[in-house]
Amino acid sequence: MYIAIDTAGGDYAPRSVIHGALVAARHLGFGLILVGKQKQIESELGRYRDSGKVDLRILDTPEVVEMSEAPATALRQKPKASIRIVADVVARGDASAFFSSGHTGATFLAARSSFGLLPGVDRAALATVIPTLRHGAILLDSGANIECRPQHLVQFAAMGNVYANLLFGMSEPKVGLLSIGEEATKGNELICETHRLLKSSDLNFIGNVEAADAYKGYADVIVCDGFTGNIALKISEGLVEVVEELLHEELKRTFTTRFGYLLSRRAFRRFSRRVDYSEYGGALLLGVKGLCIVGHGRSSSKAVRNAVAMAYHFASQGFAEKISKEMNLIPGYHSSKSSLDTDQARQVLRIG
Amino acid sequence: MYIAIDTAGGDYAPRSVIHGALVAARHLGFGLILVGKQKQIESELGRYRDSGKVDLRILDTPEVVEMSEAPATALRQKPKASIRIVADVVARGDASAFFSSGHTGATFLAARSSFGLLPGVDRAALATVIPTLRHGAILLDSGANIECRPQHLVQFAAMGNVYANLLFGMSEPKVGLLSIGEEATKGNELICETHRLLKSSDLNFIGNVEAADAYKGYADVIVCDGFTGNIALKISEGLVEVVEELLHEELKRTFTTRFGYLLSRRAFRRFSRRVDYSEYGGALLLGVKGLCIVGHGRSSSKAVRNAVAMAYHFASQGFAEKISKEMNLIPGYHSSKSSLDTDQARQVLRIG
Repeated sequence: MYIAIDTAGGDYAPRSVIHGALVAARHLGFGLILVGKQKQIESELGRYRDSGKVDLRILDTPEVVEMSEAPATALRQKPKASIRIVADVVARGDASAFFSSGHTGATFLAARSSFGLLPGVDRAALATVIPTLRHGAILLDSGANIECRPQHLVQFAAMGNVYANLLFGMSEPKVGLLSIGEEATKGNELICETHRLLKSSDLNFIGNVEAADAYKGYADVIVCDGFTGNIALKISEGLVEVVEELLHEELKRTFTTRFGYLLSRRAFRRFSRRVDYSEYGGALLLGVKGLCIVGHGRSSSKAVRNAVAMAYHFASQGFAEKISKEMNLIPGYHSSKSSLDTDQARQVLRIG
Repeated sequence: MYIAIDTAGGDYAPRSVIHGALVAARHLGFGLILVGKQKQIESELGRYRDSGKVDLRILDTPEVVEMSEAPATALRQKPKASIRIVADVVARGDASAFFSSGHTGATFLAARSSFGLLPGVDRAALATVIPTLRHGAILLDSGANIECRPQHLVQFAAMGNVYANLLFGMSEPKVGLLSIGEEATKGNELICETHRLLKSSDLNFIGNVEAADAYKGYADVIVCDGFTGNIALKISEGLVEVVEELLHEELKRTFTTRFGYLLSRRAFRRFSRRVDYSEYGGALLLGVKGLCIVGHGRSSSKAVRNAVAMAYHFASQGFAEKISKEMNLIPGYHSSKSSLDTDQARQVLRIG
């Protein structure tokens, strides 16, 4: 099995991307198709004596979609961009999944155009596993769709339901809607209408989840639009970094607290792992006919390693096919179409 | 000087509200007008031997706006609701500011109708001080306006600018726009249009602030719509709680780490204070002709104490008048009107 890697995307590319992918591949025993500038890739590979132990192929692509570019335009203007080639490699069956930590919007568009959408899905969504007090929870959309309509959020809920089912083995995962209050009336128009639709759906909808409760583990699937989801995730990440920095500052103040810190250092390391995004690998793009794992732009090589390992595990388990099959089993779900309006969504979901 | 207190609002009302307000009033030497159900208030006051040392007045109001009610309807149907009376008390000059930790929407509407909006302001906004690595930053709107237009966000930026000026003594606070990427093109339509308007304004606009950087202290004023702001704040609060719980769990695992924790306990307490919302009191409602401090629904008595102390300090310094005066000094700002469209906003802010 091969996993295709966009080596050109991400703040620390290509070094940390290639390093992380190599570690995962060597450890788990799969092949890599490294997509990007051949010279750069070869020069990076030269840093590792044992890179020859991994089954490697290189695809030379001269172009990259830069972070500042509008993704649709960039993909049109750069037919040989690494992100487009890496998606094509999977679409034509040469690799089982791909990983990119480059431009999220471009990754999303490339995957959608190379793979196509699953039947009944109007919008693919990024699903991120967040840590909670109980277990993990799936937050989606975590950044693919900036503007959404209620029926899109309902589809995200259905896809999250299937993902939680496969990932956590839950038969009826609790689905919540991220909002500013528990009451059905608390939220913007998008939330209020989505709440009504979800309430009448076949999903195990537990209502609005207040943002303050997102990490408590009450909901297994937390649904929101991509703008809100991205803000929620990124602000959390930034906060954890700041919290760790402030805590270390406090602990270094006196001899006693410094000594206390030395004694409890192992506990700190374990704690850091529990809240560190890089432990959770990447986000899975749900709703497309193929496997695509999106990494964080700031992905360290550890984050890349975990995300590529995640891509491999999902591919080994036939995740894409399972999701596609399960989505078809949700009653009335798969007849949705892209121009669906709210009234149609009601019918599709057997509402009212 | 009197501060008026809505004793009926908040999850732990009236007990923690009355307790917190009493502690602040006794410590700082001001009077209280306690608004709510007289019998309940008297019974609570009976718990404190020294409540007689505070200059207290009680206003008996039979009605309360409940959390599940639609605020506009509730205020119409309940002319004697505590939140309406407490705002009126300030509007007619009997108290210098009011505090409520009840229904945020109802508080906002009551303050707006009792006080009126400042000239040139179309929407009042809640401004919350968040901790950062450098100093505090002002996040607004943190929950008053769920749906906003670009010109509203520009007004929030101008108000935040004045608030940072008065609170931190900054002459040119750095103003940032909360979004999902630093680039001007990253964000929803509201963000992209607001970015254009702010870029051409007289404010010290530093561009989009990625959510991951909100706590880093790059911006002194962080502008967003009330839905996004509320999600950002609440998810942060929830996360800090979870982080502390996970950390304690880790530290209690072995004798060594437990001992280490005991030694470093003072550092932990200091750290907790630095990230604890209740240390920051409440949110200031900006844009109305009067002082209103909105408390967290889950306000502990410590949070109430700090918020009421904040109300007193702001009132002593003539904050409402200063803000009103400063807002008038922002060039071209005060001619805005409520039906303002984007083109008018450009003119008002001398854009383009």
